[in-house]
Amino acid sequence: MDFAYSDRCKDYLKRVSDFMDAHVYEGNEIYERQHAEFGPGEGRWKVPPIIEELKDKAKAEGLWNLFHPDPKWGPGLSNADYAPLAEQMGRCHIAPEVFNCAAPDTGNMEVLMKYGSPEQQEQWLVPLLDGKIRSAFLMTEPAVASSDATNIETEITRDGDHYVINGRKWWSSGAGDPRCKIFIVMGKTDKSAERHVQQSQILVPADAPGVKILRHLPVFGYDDAPHGHMEVELDNVRVPKENLILGEGRGFEIAQGRLGPGRIHHCMRTIGAAEVALEKMVKRLLTREAFGKPIFKHSIWEQRVAEARIDIEMARLLTLKAAWMMDTVGNKVAQGEIAMIKVAAPRMALKVIDDAIQAHGGAGVTTDFGLAQIYSGIRTLRLADGPDEVHCRAISRLEFKKHSNAAR
Amino acid sequence: MDFAYSDRCKDYLKRVSDFMDAHVYEGNEIYERQHAEFGPGEGRWKVPPIIEELKDKAKAEGLWNLFHPDPKWGPGLSNADYAPLAEQMGRCHIAPEVFNCAAPDTGNMEVLMKYGSPEQQEQWLVPLLDGKIRSAFLMTEPAVASSDATNIETEITRDGDHYVINGRKWWSSGAGDPRCKIFIVMGKTDKSAERHVQQSQILVPADAPGVKILRHLPVFGYDDAPHGHMEVELDNVRVPKENLILGEGRGFEIAQGRLGPGRIHHCMRTIGAAEVALEKMVKRLLTREAFGKPIFKHSIWEQRVAEARIDIEMARLLTLKAAWMMDTVGNKVAQGEIAMIKVAAPRMALKVIDDAIQAHGGAGVTTDFGLAQIYSGIRTLRLADGPDEVHCRAISRLEFKKHSNAAR
Amino acid sequence: MDFAYSDRCKDYLKRVSDFMDAHVYEGNEIYERQHAEFGPGEGRWKVPPIIEELKDKAKAEGLWNLFHPDPKWGPGLSNADYAPLAEQMGRCHIAPEVFNCAAPDTGNMEVLMKYGSPEQQEQWLVPLLDGKIRSAFLMTEPAVASSDATNIETEITRDGDHYVINGRKWWSSGAGDPRCKIFIVMGKTDKSAERHVQQSQILVPADAPGVKILRHLPVFGYDDAPHGHMEVELDNVRVPKENLILGEGRGFEIAQGRLGPGRIHHCMRTIGAAEVALEKMVKRLLTREAFGKPIFKHSIWEQRVAEARIDIEMARLLTLKAAWMMDTVGNKVAQGEIAMIKVAAPRMALKVIDDAIQAHGGAGVTTDFGLAQIYSGIRTLRLADGPDEVHCRAISRLEFKKHSNAAR
Amino acid sequence: MDFAYSDRCKDYLKRVSDFMDAHVYEGNEIYERQHAEFGPGEGRWKVPPIIEELKDKAKAEGLWNLFHPDPKWGPGLSNADYAPLAEQMGRCHIAPEVFNCAAPDTGNMEVLMKYGSPEQQEQWLVPLLDGKIRSAFLMTEPAVASSDATNIETEITRDGDHYVINGRKWWSSGAGDPRCKIFIVMGKTDKSAERHVQQSQILVPADAPGVKILRHLPVFGYDDAPHGHMEVELDNVRVPKENLILGEGRGFEIAQGRLGPGRIHHCMRTIGAAEVALEKMVKRLLTREAFGKPIFKHSIWEQRVAEARIDIEMARLLTLKAAWMMDTVGNKVAQGEIAMIKVAAPRMALKVIDDAIQAHGGAGVTTDFGLAQIYSGIRTLRLADGPDEVHCRAISRLEFKKHSNAAR
Repeated sequence: MDFAYSDRCKDYLKRVSDFMDAHVYEGNEIYERQHAEFGPGEGRWKVPPIIEELKDKAKAEGLWNLFHPDPKWGPGLSNADYAPLAEQMGRCHIAPEVFNCAAPDTGNMEVLMKYGSPEQQEQWLVPLLDGKIRSAFLMTEPAVASSDATNIETEITRDGDHYVINGRKWWSSGAGDPRCKIFIVMGKTDKSAERHVQQSQILVPADAPGVKILRHLPVFGYDDAPHGHMEVELDNVRVPKENLILGEGRGFEIAQGRLGPGRIHHCMRTIGAAEVALEKMVKRLLTREAFGKPIFKHSIWEQRVAEARIDIEMARLLTLKAAWMMDTVGNKVAQGEIAMIKVAAPRMALKVIDDAIQAHGGAGVTTDFGLAQIYSGIRTLRLADGPDEVHCRAISRLEFKKHSNAAR
Repeated sequence: MDFAYSDRCKDYLKRVSDFMDAHVYEGNEIYERQHAEFGPGEGRWKVPPIIEELKDKAKAEGLWNLFHPDPKWGPGLSNADYAPLAEQMGRCHIAPEVFNCAAPDTGNMEVLMKYGSPEQQEQWLVPLLDGKIRSAFLMTEPAVASSDATNIETEITRDGDHYVINGRKWWSSGAGDPRCKIFIVMGKTDKSAERHVQQSQILVPADAPGVKILRHLPVFGYDDAPHGHMEVELDNVRVPKENLILGEGRGFEIAQGRLGPGRIHHCMRTIGAAEVALEKMVKRLLTREAFGKPIFKHSIWEQRVAEARIDIEMARLLTLKAAWMMDTVGNKVAQGEIAMIKVAAPRMALKVIDDAIQAHGGAGVTTDFGLAQIYSGIRTLRLADGPDEVHCRAISRLEFKKHSNAAR
Repeated sequence: MDFAYSDRCKDYLKRVSDFMDAHVYEGNEIYERQHAEFGPGEGRWKVPPIIEELKDKAKAEGLWNLFHPDPKWGPGLSNADYAPLAEQMGRCHIAPEVFNCAAPDTGNMEVLMKYGSPEQQEQWLVPLLDGKIRSAFLMTEPAVASSDATNIETEITRDGDHYVINGRKWWSSGAGDPRCKIFIVMGKTDKSAERHVQQSQILVPADAPGVKILRHLPVFGYDDAPHGHMEVELDNVRVPKENLILGEGRGFEIAQGRLGPGRIHHCMRTIGAAEVALEKMVKRLLTREAFGKPIFKHSIWEQRVAEARIDIEMARLLTLKAAWMMDTVGNKVAQGEIAMIKVAAPRMALKVIDDAIQAHGGAGVTTDFGLAQIYSGIRTLRLADGPDEVHCRAISRLEFKKHSNAAR
Repeated sequence: MDFAYSDRCKDYLKRVSDFMDAHVYEGNEIYERQHAEFGPGEGRWKVPPIIEELKDKAKAEGLWNLFHPDPKWGPGLSNADYAPLAEQMGRCHIAPEVFNCAAPDTGNMEVLMKYGSPEQQEQWLVPLLDGKIRSAFLMTEPAVASSDATNIETEITRDGDHYVINGRKWWSSGAGDPRCKIFIVMGKTDKSAERHVQQSQILVPADAPGVKILRHLPVFGYDDAPHGHMEVELDNVRVPKENLILGEGRGFEIAQGRLGPGRIHHCMRTIGAAEVALEKMVKRLLTREAFGKPIFKHSIWEQRVAEARIDIEMARLLTLKAAWMMDTVGNKVAQGEIAMIKVAAPRMALKVIDDAIQAHGGAGVTTDFGLAQIYSGIRTLRLADGPDEVHCRAISRLEFKKHSNAAR
């Protein structure tokens, strides 16, 4: 048993941290300033130029595409080695994109690496790895309970050498970005097939006729522009049959393969966000007084700070273990742990951030410390990619299975 | 003991409910449409015209200024009789204003009724009661911990026949509204006096030279335009000495008098909001399916719905009791209960709304059902008018006092 | 709306409180001393003589059989008037019995009042009302999930002029008391009938042949002797057919009628216990120091004390309202509230008591302050008479029903 | 990073598990039977003979004294390698003693290994390591808040070649065992010294004149006989000056050295107990039905089982990390983690066990599944060795220190 990060990890972690100290935190302020200058309304859906400058810098320093373990396409860090880097990136809004490690591109790139044809890789994976374009993943639908993925209704119908796609998707994150050029769409190719082989995934260019961005979905009042979470109509969208990934009926199989690493990334970033919230809470408590003494000496805050520290440590260890299991025994065996972190990390972070908000008084619920926005973003993680309830269901079923001989 | 609402209350409750069904819910949609048409940016800080139409209608039906018990200025409903009306109004964003029962005007009007000079009443109370102008209350400051109200630093300095005011305030709610004409400002007239008589309250016209609205403070990304929560600089603002309310050093006394009824209003509206959230949760659960059965049949939701119902009922009863105590034994004796509801109602509502969000999936965190916005607004109530910690401190001190002979 | 207790209630409350101050608290200490003197083992299943002395005193002062609203058999206090008395009695272990208001006798007496034949009343109700005998209610069974009462397996079979009863019951509280002479047994007379009319209730003398007390069930290590919670075998127990209550198939109907008042009693006593725990917590905090100041000045305890006060107040109000509804609109309409208090009161009390334990350090988990024993007793209330989950299910179904037109 | 147990650990873990399967679980039943046969009252304070048989067996198989890392006195397993064994032992009440790894002997042995003179080791450590005698640690006092260890009042006064000890201790666990021959007593040798060097630790034979066992302290009604938690009076107890450990004023230093490993042991055993509770919960849910389907299919239980699994995993990882840190960077650097697990493990286990109790219905609160007793034992861990509040205080201070430059 060894809880120390590997030397390779530590080296990258130092380089990422140093780069963030040198460029990203300041860059984030520039980013917000530039974005604010675009004004309200439609102007918000443009990309502040600083981001591309930072990407170039990061790429030049070899801090690029760190997220996937395949050495064919990048440095090839294991999930366990990448996880602490993801935590680091989670400390700053723009950081993941700066290192070309931002969702949903990472998941989409992984799908293309694992399941894409050489032509699909050439056309879409290469520019994504190069940071030239961005992408979206169109899964959830407004009309059905996303907690049960078999509910999906979008149709992908074969028509000669094409597939024709009809359906309505929402929470298509990143589809608001003008650089977003390609969607991976989940839909059903055969509604009469067995429940888990009805689905397929297909590549749809963002500018294909019939693709309509209907609106953006604010998260607690934040538009997250220019990234955005979009509602998208697919109205008789026609793409070549070669755009289908892996084959008809293999949508769930692809989703499973995509699932693990993204969870690690999200959860580690969430832990990074919780660390930032704890830091801010502590600093605030150190600098304010009430009832004749500094607030950090009020024992209610001792409890909350301690619980935040405990809960962060535990969530991090579980996430690191899940990453290590993915590296050593594979996603399938690690499925319990991958589900657990999905529940544990946001639950923990929301508690820490909420306490940090409380510690800041009115400053906590507004923009000045970013806490309310972080809270909002992480609140969506209890729903995105399956609500807590579904993951708890899956975890419990593993437990019940262990003792199923006890059942009637 | 009698838990039934009085006949007078029931009569008004029916009239308010009927009026809301007939005009306000639909009016709220018109309001949002009109407001959206103003476009983004500065345009948002204008008032959708529908609101004045609705106010006229409500006034014509005698549903006006229901909030205060003094028959000199309105129907004179007791706090206990008004409380259920406030809950009703809490169900719809614009409702309180429609009935001229919106914060912070209500609190400001009460201050003027109780402590205002005839001239102050003539100049500011009459137009407020008439719905012709709006007002703000400038209390909290960005530089100090608002949890301890003695921390306030704004200075009110006598200079001949005038007072000169210097300081910075924030969370001045309603100061964004173009109809907002008058501020009540809390500050210190004598920093050398005993701790609780340093403060005074003074009337400052919104257009007085030296008053600068620095910015609006979003709540979780919502600007709450055109109402708004503003940061305000008071830079050598000079007002006639007659603008001082009640007398120098009586700021805390006024604050105490203002305090009780506002708590009832806020808490009952919060309970109304929680009822709405529970209704939406229930309706959503009834209409979606997962894993082969309607979600409302999943027992985890049975638990959450039941707990929501239980917690709403209990919070309402405590708030009604606090109102009844204010009516029968007065604010002073009811101080424990008034502090308790301030902690209990938002805590309860946030839990209910959060569960309602979870029940809605992605639709919960965005605008479609209004839940995220309600959550954000109520989250501020755990801070506004003193954070939970301060009220818990006060409540606990009453308990400790009961047994103080047990102390060394 | 009127939150004040009625004059009649206040009068009785004062008399009960005065009597407790004068006799019961001290009597409780004598009781424990006398009980301890019986020694360990079998000796514990005897009744300390002080209890009968106290009963005589209470009866002499007219503080007797206060629990039921029927003036035919006692003072006839409404549920709302009795509720505060039950709270008072909940403050002291032996108090309910002293006033002949202890479970399960109260429930059994109510069943006999409402549904008993004149002969049944003469034989069993009169001595129960007189405090000459005690009784038990045999409902729960070890072999099936008691959360679903239709699971009950005990058989009541007609055989000529008799019924023959076979089954195993547990948690038969009070059956350990040597004065316990009569059991009311729930069982099935017709397993082929429609689900809710299979059950009947029948009177079984404690000394009937075939009744075997198998063992007592400790609660967290407390035997609750001489009351006790017993596991009872009914092996071909034969009783006259006249012992059946109300008629075959009416077991559920009787259970419903019994249910409401007992809930009020239990919940109000639970609230009384929580008040005692809060008092002890406060007193302890006032008298100990750590890290240079009295513990009651540590703000973590301010929060806990305040939350205890808030939660007690709310649970009490809900219970009082349920009692008032039973008096005014009946058990049927009040079923939601009656279910709610069953969940709310123990949940609240366990939290308060657990905090009180924590405040007492090691003294909290042992016998010196009685807190651990109270905790244990109230923990059973989350299971007795249906687990929380079942009551939440019932509450939620009322909510779902309100909006059932929203369902498909 | 490597989350796998070492080969040495895995080997021992298999041997311990196999031994438990072969002998200990069954031995535990024999133990309880033999203990029950002693009858109630004084008879309970004897040791069931099976325990010594099992100890001999374990010693013969080399599964003995596994708890400390010093190869001079045993196999010398690191803390990280021992931790999983402690978890295993936590699954069964008598297991720790069987392997001579039971508290408080383990802590006392460690004190003697690290700080004992050769004579002290010869006289007391050797028979303890040999399992011939048992021991107690007399720290907590009934008269002062144990949350602040500087409050201790017991006096250790030098008198020629002796020390004379006066004071009253309680929660002296294990002092009820007839085999308990030696106490380590914490007291003050110099009340005028600087706060943290007033205390010393001294060896007091259990049969020294002036030692009086006043009573045993039940835990929630469990006497834990024959181990017991005793209240002990030390009335002019005179011991040779050579009995002082390490030197005057070094009591805190010794306490610090003792502290770390014991925490790992306790917390890992707590995790073992939580695993047992989860197993029991799952098995129960699999075998009961309500409302037409097995209870394990009710989604409320899916949530609770999943949360139990998540919380157990996280607490285990944090405890393992603390053990690993003790091995690699030492107790001092690991102090934060050692404090964290003290808070996290019991908090987690109590939740899991409470849910398991709920899943068992009435069977949960009584003796049949052991859950109530486990709950009671672990509830004391939130108080023993410092209450949660003190550990949270310590943890928070480490956080505040990191950012202390932010303070005024």
